[in-house]
Amino acid sequence: MATPLAITMGDPAGIGAEITVKALESDRARALGPVVVVGSASVLEGARAVCGTVQPIVRVADPAEAQPDRVNVVQVGDVQAPVAWGQARAEYGDAAYHYIAAAIELAMAGRVSAVVTAPINKETLHLGGHYYAGHTEIFTALTGTSASCMMLVHGAMRVSHVTTHVALRRVPDLVTAERVYRVIRLTHEALLRFGVAEPLIGVAGLNPHCGEGGLFGSEDDEQIRPAIARANAEGLRVEGPIPGDTIFVKARAGLYDAAVAMFHDQGHVAVKMLGFAVEAGSNRWTSVSGVNVTLGLPIVRTSVDHGTAFDIAGTGTASSDSMIDALEVAAQLAGPRQ
Amino acid sequence: MATPLAITMGDPAGIGAEITVKALESDRARALGPVVVVGSASVLEGARAVCGTVQPIVRVADPAEAQPDRVNVVQVGDVQAPVAWGQARAEYGDAAYHYIAAAIELAMAGRVSAVVTAPINKETLHLGGHYYAGHTEIFTALTGTSASCMMLVHGAMRVSHVTTHVALRRVPDLVTAERVYRVIRLTHEALLRFGVAEPLIGVAGLNPHCGEGGLFGSEDDEQIRPAIARANAEGLRVEGPIPGDTIFVKARAGLYDAAVAMFHDQGHVAVKMLGFAVEAGSNRWTSVSGVNVTLGLPIVRTSVDHGTAFDIAGTGTASSDSMIDALEVAAQLAGPRQ
Repeated sequence: MATPLAITMGDPAGIGAEITVKALESDRARALGPVVVVGSASVLEGARAVCGTVQPIVRVADPAEAQPDRVNVVQVGDVQAPVAWGQARAEYGDAAYHYIAAAIELAMAGRVSAVVTAPINKETLHLGGHYYAGHTEIFTALTGTSASCMMLVHGAMRVSHVTTHVALRRVPDLVTAERVYRVIRLTHEALLRFGVAEPLIGVAGLNPHCGEGGLFGSEDDEQIRPAIARANAEGLRVEGPIPGDTIFVKARAGLYDAAVAMFHDQGHVAVKMLGFAVEAGSNRWTSVSGVNVTLGLPIVRTSVDHGTAFDIAGTGTASSDSMIDALEVAAQLAGPRQ
Repeated sequence: MATPLAITMGDPAGIGAEITVKALESDRARALGPVVVVGSASVLEGARAVCGTVQPIVRVADPAEAQPDRVNVVQVGDVQAPVAWGQARAEYGDAAYHYIAAAIELAMAGRVSAVVTAPINKETLHLGGHYYAGHTEIFTALTGTSASCMMLVHGAMRVSHVTTHVALRRVPDLVTAERVYRVIRLTHEALLRFGVAEPLIGVAGLNPHCGEGGLFGSEDDEQIRPAIARANAEGLRVEGPIPGDTIFVKARAGLYDAAVAMFHDQGHVAVKMLGFAVEAGSNRWTSVSGVNVTLGLPIVRTSVDHGTAFDIAGTGTASSDSMIDALEVAAQLAGPRQ
């Protein structure tokens, strides 16, 4: 039996349990082999009821017991249904944290091949006494990782980020040659795991028009170019800097196997324009496709590219597209699992 | 006869003349009524030869003499074909400047209804002794405008910018409540000219997740919110701040009549993901659709959303899509022309 993928159920009051049971019932997820959910069997039963899915919820003592066509649950904590959908509660934040911690432990021990995370709520997490900014910080802390970066994936469009959740004011000082080089290197290694034999990476500029020769800022010439030169000198195929407003159009066309964005909105606007869609009138999200991957960890971690959606939690309407995508990308990165 | 639109021919060594003669022969441009080109009849003849267009090139002494189904030229300067395609020459920069200056004068006098600009090259412009950063600076200087802003338009997607061609490092200090309010106001007025009766405007945040309550920067709360509140107090329908990575997905869906971006890449990435496309393999741009509008001027000015493309100038292959779009948007903003 292949080593299973793990899903962390996320905040019990969010849409995590719903998108999990929905995703696991999809043909695409079923093709990936066994999956275990680290969370609460009772909450997953509740999600099954509102979503109308048919796979039974079965507790397993060990991931190795996971079977296809059912929701295998590694029970952590004792949150019980019915949950208070959409409510930020200390109990839920504490539980969500322990789902993640347990999954990381399983992955570090090689008992699951990757961790796919459903969304958590930062306020709830803090109420529960776990003062992390988000998933990424928990993963780097519990795995002892010093340098990681976020990659967004939508189909063949892959965008890694030199900075993410920092004030825009801090970005220019964080775009150093060292940091840009490190993200290029992590991106290159991830592409090899994605099965790209000789990756070609495009690197975005920081300033409009890459600073136009220093007229609109010097970082493109003084930090980004040297980082690319260093990567090239080490034999990596890397081009840039390329203006932020055209690089993602080129990456979408397949000219690059991945693009490196300098800051949150630069990369996120591009990827979400591809994967997200909202319906006028109802204002409902009709697509939330896209996967968030943390590069640089000793384990594989992917995540849905959306939040807890407290406003629709418990209604059974949340889309599981991003969760299915995240499972597929995790399986790809985990590689052949015996 | 309706007051004609004017096209400035742009840098003689770029693709300006080619996209002009191509655009004017399209059904969409011909439906807009008479157009005059401010430039060089000789260079336009050269472009006609390489593009294989059939409309005759005819010099007119006055825009009022413009006729349909021909290229009406208000001759300015004496640049002659053949031009040195793709070469930055002082003579060309000087000519490009005077095409613009002459067109602005015609527009200020009401003899043309709008100015649509073909691309210029900054290096060439400076060689010619005209030390402007670009078109916008020439237009604001020659029309005595104190506050303007750039709007990108692609179909019903309209995105105006609080800042554009400045170093990213300077952006946070430029995002002031006063400036954001002014751009909201200019955007509202433009939407009325676009024929939107009760415009609804979405305003993007500056920082990731709009700063998440001050965690990633304070400008969203301290500058953008007050600007929106002021606009609301004056009766304008404005919402935000909305995270940069979702607002444009919503604007594309029609939830907003326009979005206000805080900086260059935030808005440009979104619009170019819609209007631009490149072909893998050949690496050629297959679509460069989109229009650049300068708001706040006493005259209507639109522009193509691409550069001089020196690398393909003279080959007859440049796409006239953006020029046709720019003519249509100019006609819309100019309104009924007797």
